[in-house]
Amino acid sequence: MYLLEQRILRDGIIKEGDVLRVDSFLNHQIDVKFVNGLCSEFYRLFKDCDVTKILTIEASGIGMACLTAQFFDVPVVFAKKSKTSNITNEFYSASAFSYTHNNTNNIIVSKAYLTSSDRILIIDDFLALGGALTAMLDLCEQAGATVVGAGIMVEKAYQGGGDKIRSRGIRVESLAKIKSMDSNGIEFC
Amino acid sequence: MYLLEQRILRDGIIKEGDVLRVDSFLNHQIDVKFVNGLCSEFYRLFKDCDVTKILTIEASGIGMACLTAQFFDVPVVFAKKSKTSNITNEFYSASAFSYTHNNTNNIIVSKAYLTSSDRILIIDDFLALGGALTAMLDLCEQAGATVVGAGIMVEKAYQGGGDKIRSRGIRVESLAKIKSMDSNGIEFC
Repeated sequence: MYLLEQRILRDGIIKEGDVLRVDSFLNHQIDVKFVNGLCSEFYRLFKDCDVTKILTIEASGIGMACLTAQFFDVPVVFAKKSKTSNITNEFYSASAFSYTHNNTNNIIVSKAYLTSSDRILIIDDFLALGGALTAMLDLCEQAGATVVGAGIMVEKAYQGGGDKIRSRGIRVESLAKIKSMDSNGIEFC
Repeated sequence: MYLLEQRILRDGIIKEGDVLRVDSFLNHQIDVKFVNGLCSEFYRLFKDCDVTKILTIEASGIGMACLTAQFFDVPVVFAKKSKTSNITNEFYSASAFSYTHNNTNNIIVSKAYLTSSDRILIIDDFLALGGALTAMLDLCEQAGATVVGAGIMVEKAYQGGGDKIRSRGIRVESLAKIKSMDSNGIEFC
């Protein structure tokens, strides 16, 4: 999506460790009007898929998931990164490696909020190695839910996570796909 | 706010340790249409305050902050709970005790996204002892930002955090204020 690519070129900052920082508009400070426009694109792409619920993962996916949910008129469920005292023991659980944070999280969703009658659209900000997305797909599989696809803001395509998941037959739509990224700049697919 | 009180009475679950679970509609699964209605009330309350930015804290505040931001047409900044590899070292930092999770988090906001020209509306889901809100006020003070007030979904008024903060001259507006809560039920102020 041209608008997002241009914004990444303007405001994205490449950090050591192959990290792209877009926290001025996407995942620390959120330019809500701009992100809402991106979310409308997820609606265009998935509007005929009978989505019943949007699944994301805390923390930075939540804002865009809620904005996207307004177009679909469905609820959001966000996977939590650890077991907390106000979550029931009745949950689905999966492991997710985070490239950005270089750690592995246990993510959980209450069984009550992910069921076999759900048709799930997964929304997330980044797709690199695919750890978070794979874990969310795992949660959906445990629930017997149908995954209609995943809407991703920024895919670092050269890291291969997206294509690995596509090869499983999962529809993955990324609004910006980075082909290469280094100190000379960013090239999109 | 009557609608929220009724929803809490219908769907809220009181857990041991004086915890009110509202994760079926507010902070695990999010009933986006319903929450958006609540957020419109924050707009009614603060629309004349020249808000330039909404500040919240990850994770459960982010969705409602983004929905609220749409009414004000301003960006959201969410305080993060730990230093991560894609955050610059240039941040404001404060300590927040979480009643729900029974732990203390260091919360941070990049200095770039909270400035002395900002007029901040703080949004959060719960206010009990006031740990998170106090920490966010601390971040704003460090930045020299003006806080126009705080919009809270559910205040456990009997825990005193809200009134302690009001006594500092901070405007705190809570959509549901719980006077008492036990196995017999919930009473609102």
